[in-house]
Parts: sequence; structure tokens; C-alpha cells
Amino acid sequence: MLQEEDNKPEAEVDDEEDVIIRPRKAPVPQMQFKAADVLKAAATGLDMLRAKKPLVSCLTNYVSAPLVADGLLALGASPAMVAESGEATQIATTCDAMLVNVGTLDRAQAEAMRAAVARANQSSHPWALDPAGVGALPLRTYLARELMRRFPAVIRGNASEILVLAGIVGAETGGRGVDSLAKSEDAAAEAKRLSEVTHAAVVVSGEVDYVCVENAPIVAVQNGVAEMARVAGTGCLQGALAAAFLGALGSKERFVSALAAALVCGIAGERAAAKVKTPGSFRAALVDQLDLIKGADIVKSGKIEILK
Amino acid sequence: MLQEEDNKPEAEVDDEEDVIIRPRKAPVPQMQFKAADVLKAAATGLDMLRAKKPLVSCLTNYVSAPLVADGLLALGASPAMVAESGEATQIATTCDAMLVNVGTLDRAQAEAMRAAVARANQSSHPWALDPAGVGALPLRTYLARELMRRFPAVIRGNASEILVLAGIVGAETGGRGVDSLAKSEDAAAEAKRLSEVTHAAVVVSGEVDYVCVENAPIVAVQNGVAEMARVAGTGCLQGALAAAFLGALGSKERFVSALAAALVCGIAGERAAAKVKTPGSFRAALVDQLDLIKGADIVKSGKIEILK
Amino acid sequence: MLQEEDNKPEAEVDDEEDVIIRPRKAPVPQMQFKAADVLKAAATGLDMLRAKKPLVSCLTNYVSAPLVADGLLALGASPAMVAESGEATQIATTCDAMLVNVGTLDRAQAEAMRAAVARANQSSHPWALDPAGVGALPLRTYLARELMRRFPAVIRGNASEILVLAGIVGAETGGRGVDSLAKSEDAAAEAKRLSEVTHAAVVVSGEVDYVCVENAPIVAVQNGVAEMARVAGTGCLQGALAAAFLGALGSKERFVSALAAALVCGIAGERAAAKVKTPGSFRAALVDQLDLIKGADIVKSGKIEILK
Repeated sequence: MLQEEDNKPEAEVDDEEDVIIRPRKAPVPQMQFKAADVLKAAATGLDMLRAKKPLVSCLTNYVSAPLVADGLLALGASPAMVAESGEATQIATTCDAMLVNVGTLDRAQAEAMRAAVARANQSSHPWALDPAGVGALPLRTYLARELMRRFPAVIRGNASEILVLAGIVGAETGGRGVDSLAKSEDAAAEAKRLSEVTHAAVVVSGEVDYVCVENAPIVAVQNGVAEMARVAGTGCLQGALAAAFLGALGSKERFVSALAAALVCGIAGERAAAKVKTPGSFRAALVDQLDLIKGADIVKSGKIEILK
Repeated sequence: MLQEEDNKPEAEVDDEEDVIIRPRKAPVPQMQFKAADVLKAAATGLDMLRAKKPLVSCLTNYVSAPLVADGLLALGASPAMVAESGEATQIATTCDAMLVNVGTLDRAQAEAMRAAVARANQSSHPWALDPAGVGALPLRTYLARELMRRFPAVIRGNASEILVLAGIVGAETGGRGVDSLAKSEDAAAEAKRLSEVTHAAVVVSGEVDYVCVENAPIVAVQNGVAEMARVAGTGCLQGALAAAFLGALGSKERFVSALAAALVCGIAGERAAAKVKTPGSFRAALVDQLDLIKGADIVKSGKIEILK
Repeated sequence: MLQEEDNKPEAEVDDEEDVIIRPRKAPVPQMQFKAADVLKAAATGLDMLRAKKPLVSCLTNYVSAPLVADGLLALGASPAMVAESGEATQIATTCDAMLVNVGTLDRAQAEAMRAAVARANQSSHPWALDPAGVGALPLRTYLARELMRRFPAVIRGNASEILVLAGIVGAETGGRGVDSLAKSEDAAAEAKRLSEVTHAAVVVSGEVDYVCVENAPIVAVQNGVAEMARVAGTGCLQGALAAAFLGALGSKERFVSALAAALVCGIAGERAAAKVKTPGSFRAALVDQLDLIKGADIVKSGKIEILK
């Protein structure tokens, strides 16, 4: 959607599912767009999501699974939560998109994720990687670093998680659990580099969200409220919504998908916080606002800045 | 309860826990009853549930487990959530009823379910089968088709799940996740046939719920609201409430148990939707209404139709 | 905190992480304090918790995990939910405290808990044991009885769970699921004895909470409301909050940590119930109150009695 309007960058962001990640051989033209284009594309994406009701296969953690499922339903997607490797592999061939979130990873789930990612790639179904809690925790850090090389369409994490994936922050100095120790602006430049290596759209969630893709400027999404960080799983929810947008728009629109998820979460959070500030009630209000938000709301309330 | 008032059908619906499912040798007399009888029986069932506070062992998925546990507590039952095979087997001997929901099945849980079902049957404790998400997903489809032959007292699914169990819809053409693709009225006739083969009360959940048991007409429960489908796990919750009614009423009252769960969910949903329409708030309101509903509310607000 | 003010009992309650539990060689002096001291110490503990934002590694059940994570965040702690043994072991070296809750135990999780407890002890990080559902369920009962000998700083259960750990109630006559069959006052004396054997602070949750530690009188916390028992996982939440206080205050302050968790839960529950009585809304309101409660509220609203 953004790409179609600007400088024909489709060839540049083509999927390369069957090749090893390698440095790009030559510089590619820079994508050009304006803030209004981004908001319009995200708004159209939300309308398309509601029309298509994409089936999102979720391999995710059991802590935020209820919020993720409720949030996907509220936005208009159809979640399918799977655990076992054979089931995850099977649904990877029929779903519209897949979420891989390592938040309570165990060895069986790691195997299911590996198998499902391979099948999703074979089936050309886009998937989002959420490296929840990577850093101090070895199994998930190892797996997330492995899977980021298997062509996720979107990678979403907080600043310390993205820095760990980028290799800037070692496992020993990474996040304390899922709380980010690094500021998201510090991670934006590394996220950009990570997007160039992985060909994914990379999102650094935080007070401001930074959304990066190769050949495009970094976009800062300024929507959002501090209350989001007081409810467990709102980051996971954003990753799941990015997968839902991928299911509606396809992997070529990974930049728009990542942006739309950041905008929708941020705006819904602002509207929820305008009603309630305390976290128990805010959780319900956030899901309510995912149900209520319209494409026009993104155009009206979205606050983005296109960097450099 | 219904049976006691009508044509002495107890002998016809006797449990046959230790035999292979086989065609009934001879036609059996048809149970006769009126809509008012059904509502009264369900209302009495709710009063009995609250008096007994049945212990319901739940082998269920991790997505809806919080809603299932909260809903069981709100209605007046006592949930025990178990995972491991030895524990599931042990509690099958002491619980009042058991829920088997395959929504996030893995191999270890499948083994636990097999063992627990065998023990529950040995102990003559009734159990409900919820084939959540069968169709496209192989492990759960295989297991649900196996377990439906092990004498569940109630089987509850949406239309596509019931059609998959009935063998009408193949795995390859079944549900997309847990969202039903088939209309529930289309599945009612197959549900009736499934009830005759399995001797279970079979519920097709949807806009209208159809509740079937051998030797009785299909009952359509017209209570319920569209908001139910916007919250993850409300179907699972209905299956769990059917298990709770089984725990209070016993397996001979499986028809009343299945009907009472459909009525209670539907009426609580209507009352919740009268207060809030958005899904985050509706979820809490639904649990609130399960706490508030009384037997008299079923008689007053229940909307059922007895078919053919 | 209490200890610092009274009779220098620190030496008496020192951790003995590397020795087998054995009878104390000699009688130790009795700790003396007043109710006002207890409330003040708990209030100071809450202020310290908010300042430190302790990282609490949670090895817990999937049913109450969302409530536990939301409640920890609301109070001001930072939850990290882990499943796999290597991850649980790794984070045991970096977290401020750990929660071990056996509510949906399976064999893999049992191994993770054993390994993580060993590592937490090596690292001198305090941990809380929640024997959720011990009694009728063999795996968790066996594990909880094993782990209670590995120096938990706090043990929190309902009356029947504590009686099972104390060996008073056998597995065959224990709790029906997580609902307590025994009255908490009956369990208080046994809890005291259990605290002397394990050197843990032992909490019996119920209408009144009893908090015991060796060398101190039993403290009865009278805050709390019946609505707490209508929401799944409020007991688990209290155990998690005890771990959070341990993370802020350290294992020497296990008595204050256990008391502060009981007070905070009880007072937050009372304030939530003053707003809503029905369980779906109460759940959100309880989390809201954990966010709102201040140290001064504990001093003002805490109701405790120091027994014998």
C-alpha cells in the first residue's frame, strides 16, 4: 500500500524465503512517503482486516494468551491458539498469518515454532516474531536469534529485546524479564540495521514506537500511554495485531502492518486511558477500544514523525 | 428431572460405560415434554448446583482457563484445574464431574485426557467433551473422535466442530480455528445422529443452540447475543458449565445439564449485553451475570423451542 | 524491619541454605512487637517495593498467571514468567525473588522448579512456595512436601493445603481442588509448627489470614472480603505478592513480607468490594486497588491481632 504509491519498491522488499540471509549486494533506492500516506495506509489496512477477518495462528505464551485472543477478536481477526508441533505445522498451511511469541517458551514449543515457521515460509504465509523476554533467558534468546534469520515479516520487541536480537546487548546484560532497560530511541538505529539484515519490518515498542524497514526512513509512532506498561501482555498484543494486519495485507505490506499495529494499539490505549487510569479496568477498556476503533480514527488521531 | 416426569425413559438412556458403541438394537420410546418442563428442570438444576457446589476437574486449554475458572466459581461450582496425567487420573475418582477441552492440546495433555476419561468412567463420574477447534488441527481431531466413543455425557461444540465429529466434514474442510464456518441449524440433524451413536447429549452452539439426546426431540435454545462470539472462550465456558451441571445432577440428567448450560450462558449473555456492548467490558459483565442469575430467571427469560 | 526493632532476632532467623532441616539446637528468644509495629513495617515494605520494583521470577500455573502478572505489575513489581528449566534456573540467579506455585504442575515444570529452587538458594535469592491444590493431587503434593524442606522464605496456602504440608491431613483427605475444607483458625497452630520446622514464614489464607514465623507470636490479619474467594487465583496472587515483598525486603524480612502481602490483598479486596460485588467486575477492581494502595493505607486500614 505504501509501497505501491512510492517509487516501486516492491522488487526491493521481495521475500527471499529460500536463501540464507546475506548482505545486500548493492544499494537500493530509498522509499519516499509522507506522514499522511502512512496514516492513510494504516487506516485502509484496518478496513481490509475487518473485511477479511484473517485467521491468525498463535504460538504464544500462556500469560498473555487470553489478552491476545480477546484483542485479536476485538480488532476483527480470528485467533487460533495452538500448542503441539503437528497442529502448529498444519495450521501454518491454512492460516492467513502466524504469531510466534517466545514469552513462556519450553522445549516442545520451541520445536513446534521451528516446524511451523518452516511450513509458513513454504506456504508463503507471513508471520511475526515477538522476542518477549529475550536477554537474560537462554532458550528463548537462542531460538529468537535463530528464527529472526528465517524471514519473519515483522519483529516486535521492546528496546532491550531488539538490542539483544541485534547482537548489541549480550544475553548477560539484556532485559530483566520483559521490562525494557534500554530506551527505545537508543534502539531505533539498531532496529533499522536489524531490518536490513532480516528484511523484516522491525518495531521497537516503548513510550514512542519506532518502526523500521530496509529502504525506508524510520517512522516514530507517538501514540500510546504509560498505562499500557502497567498491564501484562500489551506488548504481546501489539505483536499479535501486527500478525493480524499481515494476514489481511500480506508480507509485502509488512511495514504498513507493523505501523498499523503500533497506531491501533497506541490510539486504543489513549482512548482507554481517557476513561480509566487504573490497570485492572484499563485492560478491559483497551480491548473495548480495539473493538471501537475505525480507520478514520487512525487518520484523525495518529501521531507519527518520519525520521531522517 | 425431565425424564422423571415423562414416560419413564431412564432405562433407555442408561449408561453403558463398559460396552463398545453399537447401533441400538430396537427403537425406543420417544421422550415427551413441553418447553415449560425444560425451563423448570434447568431452573431446578441451577438451584441444585448452587446447593452442591460440585467439584469440576478441568483438563482444558490455557487460553480460556481463566474465564472457565472464573465462570465456574461465579455460577457456584468449584473448579480444579489439572495438567499432569497422574493428577488428572486421581481427581477423576473424587470429582463430581470433569471437563475435557482440547483447545490447546499437546501430546502430554492428550495422554492425561485418555487416562482421566478411563478413570472417570470407571468411577461413574460424568464428563463433558469440548472439541474446541477440531477440523483443521489433526491431534485434537483424532483425540476428540476417539474420546467421543468413550461415553461423554455431554458433547458441546460449534456447528463445524460437531460436523467434524459426526464425520460429515473432513479434517481438511473443517473449521478455521474455533470459528464455526457452518451454520448451527445445518448441524442440528447431524448432532441428533451423533447423540444416538454416542449416547451423549450433544450441543451445537451458535446464534441458536441446538441440544439433542437420543429418544427426545431437538431443543432449540434461542437465548444469547452476538457479543458472546467477540470474547475468547465463551464456548469453552458453556462446555465447562455443562460439566458443572453434570456434577450436580448426574449423567442421567445429561440432557437437562446441557440445556441448563445453554440457557444460563444465553441469559447471562443477554443481561451482560444489556449493560455493555464492547468485548473487554462484556467479558467481566458476563461473569457478573453468572453470579447473579437465579433459577427463577431461567423460567422467566428462557426462550426455547421444541423441534419436530 | 520488625526484627531490627525487636530483640535482635536476626541471628536466630538466619538462612541455613546448605543444611538439612533439623530441630533448633536451643530455644531462641521470643520476638516481641505490637500491632502498630507490624502495620508500620508493612507500610514501609510497600514503599520499598515501589522504589525497588523487584524482578519476580514466576514459575506458576497457567490459570492464574494473567492475574498474577497483572497484580504484580499493579503493585509495582516486575514479573518474569518462565516455564523451561534452563530459563528458570538462569533467572533464579538474577531475579530479586521467585514464586513457585504448583497449581497446574506437570513433570517438566516440577523439574524446572527443583532446579530453580536449588539455584535461588545458591544465589541467596528468596522464594515463596504456594502449594496450590495439594492434598488430593499426588504430583504437586509430593513436590510441595519436598520443596518445603528447601528453605522457602514464605509458604502460603489455604487451611487444608497447610494441613497437608504439615502432615496433619493426608493426601487422601485433603482439599477438594484449591478450595479449603478446613477452617483457617484450625490450621494456625499447625502453621506455626510448620514455620518452626521449615524456618519459613507460613501464611494460612482464609476469611482471617494467620501469619506465623518461628520465635514470634502468630499474627491474625482480619482484612479481606468473601468476594476474594469468588475469583480464581486470588490466593495465588497473594503468594506472588509475598514473593514481591521478599524481592524488595530480603529473606530476613520474610515475616514482614508475608504480613504485607496479606494486608495489601485484604485491604485492596475490601476497597474493591466497596465498589463492586460481582466477581467479573471485582477482579478488575482488585487489580485497580493494588495500583492505588499506599503505605499509609496499610497503617490506616490494616486490622491485625497478635495472638498469644
